[in-house]
Amino acid sequence: MNQASSTKPFKRLLLTGAGGGLGTMLRDRIKPWADVVRLSDIGDLGPAREGEEIVRCDLADRAAVLGMMEGVDAVLHFGGISVEDKFEPIMNANILGLHHLYEAVHKCGVKRVIYASSSHVVGFYPTTELVDASMPLRPDGFYGLSKCFGEALSRYYYDRFGTETVCLRIGSSFPEPRNPRMMVTYLGYDDLVELIRCALFTPRVGHTITFGASDNDIRWWDNRHAGHIGYKPKQSSRVFAHNFPDTGERPAPDDLPTIYQGGPFVTNGPQY
Amino acid sequence: MNQASSTKPFKRLLLTGAGGGLGTMLRDRIKPWADVVRLSDIGDLGPAREGEEIVRCDLADRAAVLGMMEGVDAVLHFGGISVEDKFEPIMNANILGLHHLYEAVHKCGVKRVIYASSSHVVGFYPTTELVDASMPLRPDGFYGLSKCFGEALSRYYYDRFGTETVCLRIGSSFPEPRNPRMMVTYLGYDDLVELIRCALFTPRVGHTITFGASDNDIRWWDNRHAGHIGYKPKQSSRVFAHNFPDTGERPAPDDLPTIYQGGPFVTNGPQY
Amino acid sequence: MNQASSTKPFKRLLLTGAGGGLGTMLRDRIKPWADVVRLSDIGDLGPAREGEEIVRCDLADRAAVLGMMEGVDAVLHFGGISVEDKFEPIMNANILGLHHLYEAVHKCGVKRVIYASSSHVVGFYPTTELVDASMPLRPDGFYGLSKCFGEALSRYYYDRFGTETVCLRIGSSFPEPRNPRMMVTYLGYDDLVELIRCALFTPRVGHTITFGASDNDIRWWDNRHAGHIGYKPKQSSRVFAHNFPDTGERPAPDDLPTIYQGGPFVTNGPQY
Amino acid sequence: MNQASSTKPFKRLLLTGAGGGLGTMLRDRIKPWADVVRLSDIGDLGPAREGEEIVRCDLADRAAVLGMMEGVDAVLHFGGISVEDKFEPIMNANILGLHHLYEAVHKCGVKRVIYASSSHVVGFYPTTELVDASMPLRPDGFYGLSKCFGEALSRYYYDRFGTETVCLRIGSSFPEPRNPRMMVTYLGYDDLVELIRCALFTPRVGHTITFGASDNDIRWWDNRHAGHIGYKPKQSSRVFAHNFPDTGERPAPDDLPTIYQGGPFVTNGPQY
Amino acid sequence: MNQASSTKPFKRLLLTGAGGGLGTMLRDRIKPWADVVRLSDIGDLGPAREGEEIVRCDLADRAAVLGMMEGVDAVLHFGGISVEDKFEPIMNANILGLHHLYEAVHKCGVKRVIYASSSHVVGFYPTTELVDASMPLRPDGFYGLSKCFGEALSRYYYDRFGTETVCLRIGSSFPEPRNPRMMVTYLGYDDLVELIRCALFTPRVGHTITFGASDNDIRWWDNRHAGHIGYKPKQSSRVFAHNFPDTGERPAPDDLPTIYQGGPFVTNGPQY
Amino acid sequence: MNQASSTKPFKRLLLTGAGGGLGTMLRDRIKPWADVVRLSDIGDLGPAREGEEIVRCDLADRAAVLGMMEGVDAVLHFGGISVEDKFEPIMNANILGLHHLYEAVHKCGVKRVIYASSSHVVGFYPTTELVDASMPLRPDGFYGLSKCFGEALSRYYYDRFGTETVCLRIGSSFPEPRNPRMMVTYLGYDDLVELIRCALFTPRVGHTITFGASDNDIRWWDNRHAGHIGYKPKQSSRVFAHNFPDTGERPAPDDLPTIYQGGPFVTNGPQY
Repeated sequence: MNQASSTKPFKRLLLTGAGGGLGTMLRDRIKPWADVVRLSDIGDLGPAREGEEIVRCDLADRAAVLGMMEGVDAVLHFGGISVEDKFEPIMNANILGLHHLYEAVHKCGVKRVIYASSSHVVGFYPTTELVDASMPLRPDGFYGLSKCFGEALSRYYYDRFGTETVCLRIGSSFPEPRNPRMMVTYLGYDDLVELIRCALFTPRVGHTITFGASDNDIRWWDNRHAGHIGYKPKQSSRVFAHNFPDTGERPAPDDLPTIYQGGPFVTNGPQY
Repeated sequence: MNQASSTKPFKRLLLTGAGGGLGTMLRDRIKPWADVVRLSDIGDLGPAREGEEIVRCDLADRAAVLGMMEGVDAVLHFGGISVEDKFEPIMNANILGLHHLYEAVHKCGVKRVIYASSSHVVGFYPTTELVDASMPLRPDGFYGLSKCFGEALSRYYYDRFGTETVCLRIGSSFPEPRNPRMMVTYLGYDDLVELIRCALFTPRVGHTITFGASDNDIRWWDNRHAGHIGYKPKQSSRVFAHNFPDTGERPAPDDLPTIYQGGPFVTNGPQY
Repeated sequence: MNQASSTKPFKRLLLTGAGGGLGTMLRDRIKPWADVVRLSDIGDLGPAREGEEIVRCDLADRAAVLGMMEGVDAVLHFGGISVEDKFEPIMNANILGLHHLYEAVHKCGVKRVIYASSSHVVGFYPTTELVDASMPLRPDGFYGLSKCFGEALSRYYYDRFGTETVCLRIGSSFPEPRNPRMMVTYLGYDDLVELIRCALFTPRVGHTITFGASDNDIRWWDNRHAGHIGYKPKQSSRVFAHNFPDTGERPAPDDLPTIYQGGPFVTNGPQY
Repeated sequence: MNQASSTKPFKRLLLTGAGGGLGTMLRDRIKPWADVVRLSDIGDLGPAREGEEIVRCDLADRAAVLGMMEGVDAVLHFGGISVEDKFEPIMNANILGLHHLYEAVHKCGVKRVIYASSSHVVGFYPTTELVDASMPLRPDGFYGLSKCFGEALSRYYYDRFGTETVCLRIGSSFPEPRNPRMMVTYLGYDDLVELIRCALFTPRVGHTITFGASDNDIRWWDNRHAGHIGYKPKQSSRVFAHNFPDTGERPAPDDLPTIYQGGPFVTNGPQY
Repeated sequence: MNQASSTKPFKRLLLTGAGGGLGTMLRDRIKPWADVVRLSDIGDLGPAREGEEIVRCDLADRAAVLGMMEGVDAVLHFGGISVEDKFEPIMNANILGLHHLYEAVHKCGVKRVIYASSSHVVGFYPTTELVDASMPLRPDGFYGLSKCFGEALSRYYYDRFGTETVCLRIGSSFPEPRNPRMMVTYLGYDDLVELIRCALFTPRVGHTITFGASDNDIRWWDNRHAGHIGYKPKQSSRVFAHNFPDTGERPAPDDLPTIYQGGPFVTNGPQY
Repeated sequence: MNQASSTKPFKRLLLTGAGGGLGTMLRDRIKPWADVVRLSDIGDLGPAREGEEIVRCDLADRAAVLGMMEGVDAVLHFGGISVEDKFEPIMNANILGLHHLYEAVHKCGVKRVIYASSSHVVGFYPTTELVDASMPLRPDGFYGLSKCFGEALSRYYYDRFGTETVCLRIGSSFPEPRNPRMMVTYLGYDDLVELIRCALFTPRVGHTITFGASDNDIRWWDNRHAGHIGYKPKQSSRVFAHNFPDTGERPAPDDLPTIYQGGPFVTNGPQY
């Protein structure tokens, strides 16, 4: 087979965190976009399939990260820790690790990063408030805090070096909503793939922050500052509404997970 | 039949103004939400049907209002005067009466009120301006003024006591638009019921102000601050467009009812 | 002496609430502005002095209010109840009474009202937030609520009839601050008089809302929307700073009067 | 046939620039709106068809413009130069010509103008920014500059004389998008006609600025300030997406036509 | 004397409109800033004094403007027509003339222009509204309209070519206020010179729009977007307040010059 | 002398970074505020003077930080690295170290932290733009990035635990400006002490972000969101203006340190 005859848009895409929940789902979905998809994870990803390269890599290992980046056109960064945890592991994976990633991106001349940020960077806004990407951050734990760092770091690389990043403030990307909160934050898999596609192929994105949610009825996030990437959700949590029937029960007035958008994350934080 | 086996969300909902135009329409529509619907009005409502309780009550009568509130889970307040009138009757029904209502709500520990406010709280904005719930009030008469008072009173009860209210700034809720202005302000009955459902069942609403209009083509109101209740209109005045064909006629430059959103209300006020 | 030779700007100014704290102070200060100052109050004002007319008037008495207004050029409305109280007296004096006042203003062709509103219309904003005149109201009690009504009523008379009003959201107008909160809200008497002068003599004011505070160091209110009346405070609470020395004491986290701008008013409300 | 029996909304509509690309398309489409459509152009329009009047007119000729305006109810002004050019021809057609037009509009008592402005009045905003009609202008050449002038001139005629204008900031109105940029700026012909219809028949428009784009996925323009005219696009560039497949190619960091919304216009300007 | 020993910041400044009111005043004041001040005007400026060059130039003469620009470091553009007039003379001087000026600026590599715009670009804002440089333009006549054009043209030259301009929206620059309106719009001569100094010497200004007023008590304009040039007025109209004593007289409700900021300009426009 | 008779506001204040430039200056200035000032630094601070306690502490040492915090009423956190450096040392001192600090603050029940953030969290805004505390962050290097992290972390501790922090976005706090940029960013020592006093003694601050600059003529930062702490600068860089005379020299169009507010920091970052 002749590589030159390929008509795929990218030669090599790197997907980090390829062993995680979203990474596993994305593994096949992104294949049409690149001749080679390089998959990396801190854990074992098994053997490479056709059109794949596998790189095992701890993001805290600077040299390994640099090696992983060679020959890459664009990065989908879903690696690191994606749940609440103690501070140091989060720092090593999501702060130091991200520094390594952008240092490598810069050294290897990668043009664009799709960065899996999180809606937990604004988890301490009340569920009665509409949030947009220009409003001050209100993280709801160490995980959210590490994503605040990531948004700032990627902004810096754009301002200083022109490296483009789209930060995806992903809500709850699962096959279906698991609780009433996820009726609001649900991001269907098809919609996530479409969001990544928009982020990856829009000719110019600068440094864009976009919320990642499907077309759910309840809306906490206003995506107006990301209209230029053209993401239109096609899924909606409303098809799962029967799983969460209307109830007259009221949460206690001081029930933090219903007061704040972050839900259970807001009380998952440091346990003193 | 055993009442205890009920799975309806509320035990008892109170609908005030049950004898009015919207009250009459709502009477049956809200039954699925509560074991008992208590209906009140200043006029005669006839006999109670199954699942109903009837309370005749003048809102200006403090003790009667308190009595009416006992055992109630949530209130749909459609009572009071809903058209332009002289000041004192409006004050007695909509200001003093509302005070009585919230006093009773507070004393009886009712958690939430759905309050029929009106788009006439902003009726003196021009028809060329987009209004949202955070903008200063511009009432177009004594009726609108009493609704301004109601929005402020309910805000106070939320800030001070945590009583939740959703203020519905209802446009024109009729079977169909009766004039060209109502092509903009039309709120179909199904949409009104859906709006009330959203307002009633969203777990947390704090103090929310929402405009009540269907998905009409012309839009004077931006409902962005109420996205968290998840109201999505399904009706639209556009199906009645043939009743109001395009015309090249221009209103006189000083014709107040076409200059201002309140329409005829803006000149219905005090006649000196 | 010939009245015709007068060069005072107004023929007759009406000061309501002339027996109250601010009314008493203003009584002499406003004399240079009018040939005749008509003073009214619900209580006894004693005999008229030179250049004064005395009218005893209960604002809830519609006919009396109309009589009081005849021949008046402009009104300084400091009447009504100016502290927290039960709802009905406040309603009668500040809501019904204000309706009577504007009805009379309209019938008598008075061009402008200076209305003593209050910073308690926004008393439920946190002390850490900057408030301006375009932001939603958050009254801190029945008194504040009645002032919300007054601001909306006067807006209506402006939009409908062109009657101009300047609403003064007065902070704490006393000879000096009486507690640390008043270091922020202090409005010296000279500054109040100057504020009224600006409000009265600016050729056009439309419907203006202005905060009334001196040039104090701490600032909760942004007066940007009232720059066109040209009020520049010359007094400051800082000369009284020695009365309230720095302290490391911290209010309890749930101490409402230090959380909210309204201070003690926020807990003075309805006692159930 | 009896003219008096006509039920068309307008007696006479004037379409300028009737020989241009959009003018030619509009010629038949607007016939249902008027008994007579008067067509004008600087070039030859051929013979008048039924229901048409033809006026050959150079906008720089003041007397001719005045003559063209007699008996007109409303104007669709698509005349002048609609591409980048040297300054003087643009000035003569689009600045001096527009002055002549509005002078004639005023003298003849025409009530409303639909003015073909252009999205090139904001062409120097980055493609990553959302622009609305209240934001400062950033023209991308002499053509865009002449449209900035037109928006200001029409605003003046509204403020001073009450002449209503709807400025259409048209994107790219062609049968289909011709390049990737037009996937964003595309305005289908049906949508353009609908936009003009809304602008023409909304009873009151004051001075309205609206962007003209179809319901494309990528969105640079926020039309919130024009919700009162009720334009709802029904076309979308997405049906042409296959013509512009996703590509991983990145424009050079200093490639102005992809950095700025104006596209190639931003470098078409004065060639020194 | 040795030119080389000069320590003046600029080698050659061009002042256009040097024969006008402000030009005449500036002629001597700006000498400390440049070895040579080149003065131009359409009229006779008399003989050059020491450190001056005189160029007689009609701005509508393209070649003459180009000649005038040679060897210039920076331009203070006070030329053109600065009062209301018929359209064509204003267009020739302020639109075509300005085009010539910027074309010459570009060709000669001049880095910065200080452009005498005018507060009449926003003259149709009400006197009760606070205006800042980011708000839409509302010119009050042909003169104001030509200044709108100038602000847009200079923005274009900055976006396209990097030519820096500071637009000065000058209020009323006279030795003292001549009427009550000028108590608001007054810009003392010392303050004007200081404003020009700031605009000329701030290392980077991009395209800046600043209002030009002294520290007057009444404030219609918010200069927040020009804080980076560091202009602090030291004069104030308040020292002339005795010339305009307080009066209880009220302008008629439809008296345009007191309703709108532009004052008499708003009715000076086209006389049909 | 009896310590118990002390009337100082605090029993024990902790000043970290006491050996740094600002720490050394503050050492004596803050003594009037506390019976004991505990000083800490990573380096040697010499012997404790009267009213002092000395604690040598590396912020990256969790246990040491916890020990340092015992018995402390409030913290002035000036420790960590305050210049651009490699990523890891900054991370250890300013990210991990700050985590240790807030963990200790929380465990020891300290009520308030005054946190030395930096204007370099917004160093990549252009020098022509006005920045306020609600705008998105644009750090200009690793140092600024670590301060972004600190602002987010302290916000989290406030939202989650109620710990109050005032973030001081300090400009350039030196005895006098050292270059033209510092004419804008200068914060005199007296003003810094006053700013800290306001931050420390205002009864309630929640989570406040304030810029730290003296009353300089040029203004890049709008401190409106911090009006509630009452800081009024009394110093100004203008007394040093003679050191930086006006010059007609223009920086090159691509000279980053004059384009962006961060000045030389914007190019001090990672050297690849």
